[in-house]
Amino acid sequence: MTPERPELTATPRNKGVDEAVAAARRVIAALLHAGDRSAAEMSTMADRLNAVADHLEEHAPAVEERMIDMWRGEGVTRHDPVTGPENALAPPLHLHGRQDGSIEGVVVLGMPYQGPPGYVHGGVSALLLDHTLGVANHWAGPSGMTAELTLRYHRPTPLFESLTVTGRQVSVDGRKIRTVGTISAGGEVVVSAEGLFIDKQLPRPR
Amino acid sequence: MTPERPELTATPRNKGVDEAVAAARRVIAALLHAGDRSAAEMSTMADRLNAVADHLEEHAPAVEERMIDMWRGEGVTRHDPVTGPENALAPPLHLHGRQDGSIEGVVVLGMPYQGPPGYVHGGVSALLLDHTLGVANHWAGPSGMTAELTLRYHRPTPLFESLTVTGRQVSVDGRKIRTVGTISAGGEVVVSAEGLFIDKQLPRPR
Repeated sequence: MTPERPELTATPRNKGVDEAVAAARRVIAALLHAGDRSAAEMSTMADRLNAVADHLEEHAPAVEERMIDMWRGEGVTRHDPVTGPENALAPPLHLHGRQDGSIEGVVVLGMPYQGPPGYVHGGVSALLLDHTLGVANHWAGPSGMTAELTLRYHRPTPLFESLTVTGRQVSVDGRKIRTVGTISAGGEVVVSAEGLFIDKQLPRPR
Repeated sequence: MTPERPELTATPRNKGVDEAVAAARRVIAALLHAGDRSAAEMSTMADRLNAVADHLEEHAPAVEERMIDMWRGEGVTRHDPVTGPENALAPPLHLHGRQDGSIEGVVVLGMPYQGPPGYVHGGVSALLLDHTLGVANHWAGPSGMTAELTLRYHRPTPLFESLTVTGRQVSVDGRKIRTVGTISAGGEVVVSAEGLFIDKQLPRPR
């Protein structure tokens, strides 16, 4: 039996990794316009971050192997830049399926995602919606690659407030899939999206 | 006299900050599917990253003050998620003006920007293009907020290869601004964009 709100985002696998990624997200936000610092102080921060990167890289497989491994048997990706618990670029957005076949997630975006003063970057909204429409397709049935995506910006999308992101597959006609989605803040739609997807998958690296 | 290829991306201000942000970008990439690690090892990485975030946050002004300061007298933003040298989410893309009034930039995207296996996330292409169209407006004359953005994905956009991103304002009709742009790889257009912008600025925080 399907649970009432099935999670469509990857669940934690290696607690340490998810913790480290969450800490990296804190670093990203803290580096943004962090006040008057001496160059020496910031160089020390750079050294400490480079030391972490050095350590991780030293023990990591080659990029080619990591690419193969990250696509092996993953139902829901852990590495994507929107929902991925392993990707510090991801806010992350947590998506779940709804009983009507659509999907939904809630997210609060901070300073790194800013476009106009105090508001979310229009391109970040596009990133969230493209991804959500793709996951909505997976959830509903046939899925594929984005062929065309249209975003309409109805009003500015606030930072630091709870945003609801939705996606719903509306039709499948041969290999053409049409999908819509919205971002809402305070109960009002701030951005809406329409996407045309083509039912086609790229081969996984191996 | 205007230089032949004027930089439209912020130039370094505090070398230490830019170094620390570059180091944070290395950490983001290195955390992605970094191989078999013990939870203890990754918890140590988390501790080291949290210590950097703690230090930065401890000495940082309140978010409200940082928001006011980051918009004070900035011609080109240092904090945006596409070109900003202070924003570790940004690849970063370096844009410059061309003599014909359009703008151009070159970027190579790594694993954190992945969508389909081995290719750039469609939403990341949308983010780059929305931003580039906005900067193209600034460079050409009147600029404003995105009202509508349409992306067409002609072929997959490769990771780890040099991508050329362009933007050009095509018309201004009252407050309506129309702008186009492309992403090319190996001399072929992989994504194209058309945007409608409204000549309107949100007030800067103060």
